[in-house]
Amino acid sequence: MDYQLLRRIKGFSARVSLLGVDLHVNNISYYNQTDVHFFHSHEFSEIIYVLSGEIKVGIGTEIVTVREHEILYMGGNIRHKLKIYPDIPVECLTMSFELTYALQDSQIAPQWIREEQELVKTLMSSRHGVTEDKGSCIRIIDDICEGIGEGTVGEYSKLKNHLGNLFICTLQAFGNNRKRLEEDAAREVDFVNKAIQINDYIGKNFTRELTLQSVADELNYSTRQLQRIIKLYYNISFRELLIQYRVGYSKVLLGLTPHSLEVVAGTCGFSSLKSFEKYFKLSEGMTPSAFKKIYGKCNS
Amino acid sequence: MDYQLLRRIKGFSARVSLLGVDLHVNNISYYNQTDVHFFHSHEFSEIIYVLSGEIKVGIGTEIVTVREHEILYMGGNIRHKLKIYPDIPVECLTMSFELTYALQDSQIAPQWIREEQELVKTLMSSRHGVTEDKGSCIRIIDDICEGIGEGTVGEYSKLKNHLGNLFICTLQAFGNNRKRLEEDAAREVDFVNKAIQINDYIGKNFTRELTLQSVADELNYSTRQLQRIIKLYYNISFRELLIQYRVGYSKVLLGLTPHSLEVVAGTCGFSSLKSFEKYFKLSEGMTPSAFKKIYGKCNS
Repeated sequence: MDYQLLRRIKGFSARVSLLGVDLHVNNISYYNQTDVHFFHSHEFSEIIYVLSGEIKVGIGTEIVTVREHEILYMGGNIRHKLKIYPDIPVECLTMSFELTYALQDSQIAPQWIREEQELVKTLMSSRHGVTEDKGSCIRIIDDICEGIGEGTVGEYSKLKNHLGNLFICTLQAFGNNRKRLEEDAAREVDFVNKAIQINDYIGKNFTRELTLQSVADELNYSTRQLQRIIKLYYNISFRELLIQYRVGYSKVLLGLTPHSLEVVAGTCGFSSLKSFEKYFKLSEGMTPSAFKKIYGKCNS
Repeated sequence: MDYQLLRRIKGFSARVSLLGVDLHVNNISYYNQTDVHFFHSHEFSEIIYVLSGEIKVGIGTEIVTVREHEILYMGGNIRHKLKIYPDIPVECLTMSFELTYALQDSQIAPQWIREEQELVKTLMSSRHGVTEDKGSCIRIIDDICEGIGEGTVGEYSKLKNHLGNLFICTLQAFGNNRKRLEEDAAREVDFVNKAIQINDYIGKNFTRELTLQSVADELNYSTRQLQRIIKLYYNISFRELLIQYRVGYSKVLLGLTPHSLEVVAGTCGFSSLKSFEKYFKLSEGMTPSAFKKIYGKCNS
């Protein structure tokens, strides 16, 4: 990979909203052994990623060695310098940034935000530190270079997102790529918007007898609210939504099982064979038995 | 790749700021041949990505076939339905979204924003259309699945960025992955912030005689402004910055060329050998000749 392509994005700055924090990228720079660097300090935190070779970094009075595919983190306002020697090959990418807490989006599971903020806390718990990239950071940097190299229109639009992910991967690396707990994953499933919640509920229960009233009661809506949300979101009525689920599922059963039409009608929640046949025809343009003849895998 | 993992992000919604537009992702869903889908419409535009197999999609009165690794775009308020048959294997990812024009970040090159907005216009120029993904979309979807599968803490923080890039790659695919013009690339180089611009100017001109006044004049700052920006940004003075460049470059010359100390001093912009030796010692803790003995590649 030609990492020198990264010189083209030097000075890029942008605000990238993550889930719980905003990442303000102040500057991106690429350095190799032909460059000159000097002691300086600034208010921004900085990440230095060693793409190849290794480098010594003066941080205050200390000297820290950062090896290939290692990442150095440094907090703000520390006097620092990349110690570049013309005869020691090195390539590195630096990103200076600030973080601010973001307004939280109500659609985002609080657990995801907490996770992110804990990772941020881990990173910032020391003034500086070095960790190893297990491959996720370098992959993003490769993607950036590939994009720049190909010169496709729109490639710079990806840069912000790539830098956001590069930052998250750095957080993960400093957090030792810790795995999430199973119970956290379970809690997230509820974070979907109202229409999707309603749709999911009907999708899971359409084989039973469902009425507008019973679904509204179950999900704590008035029947009016329920109808309004479904109409607004899917532009169909509650009744149509329910029938579409039933007809849809009947096609699975007709296709994959040897069940009779009566059994299929009952299993799908239709009140009678007659109503099943009527709605199936309306929706699919053919009768259930014609459908079974064409698509059935278990026809005797 | 186990694309069923995408079921875990069903209902995810978030606002992703791109360069010139904000992408409001309303919902993400995964469907395969075991799912039920129904005719509906909503105000959101929608992208359907076929991960494997192929699918027919009812759009109004038309039926459109979308093959593996093809992407269907549909504008808002169109009645549509994925025609799912239990015996025709298919896997697809749908993303419904809205776009709004974003407040523009002054640090972003206008050319990048224009590019993005032109791609958006291309996408939206027809009510619906199909194009082929050359591999960039599927790569992002694979990354998402891999992340979900590994269950690393912080993985959901990447989702927004991934979806932003998935959208850009979709725009690029509909724009036939057009290449950018060389002259556009050249114009962007100026879009760096003030301190970086100053630093760059000094970095390119330190071998000449430079004074605070001459740099300020050249870049249209007052000497006071120039000092303030350098101090604020790098926490060093103009003079120190200049000397660090000169010392830094002298190390390159001492290391890689057979030039005498006098020639090196002159080439780097030092007014005399004496001042070169003084500043070199201060910065590096050794004399230039000692440095040349240790690191010089061309010592006779």
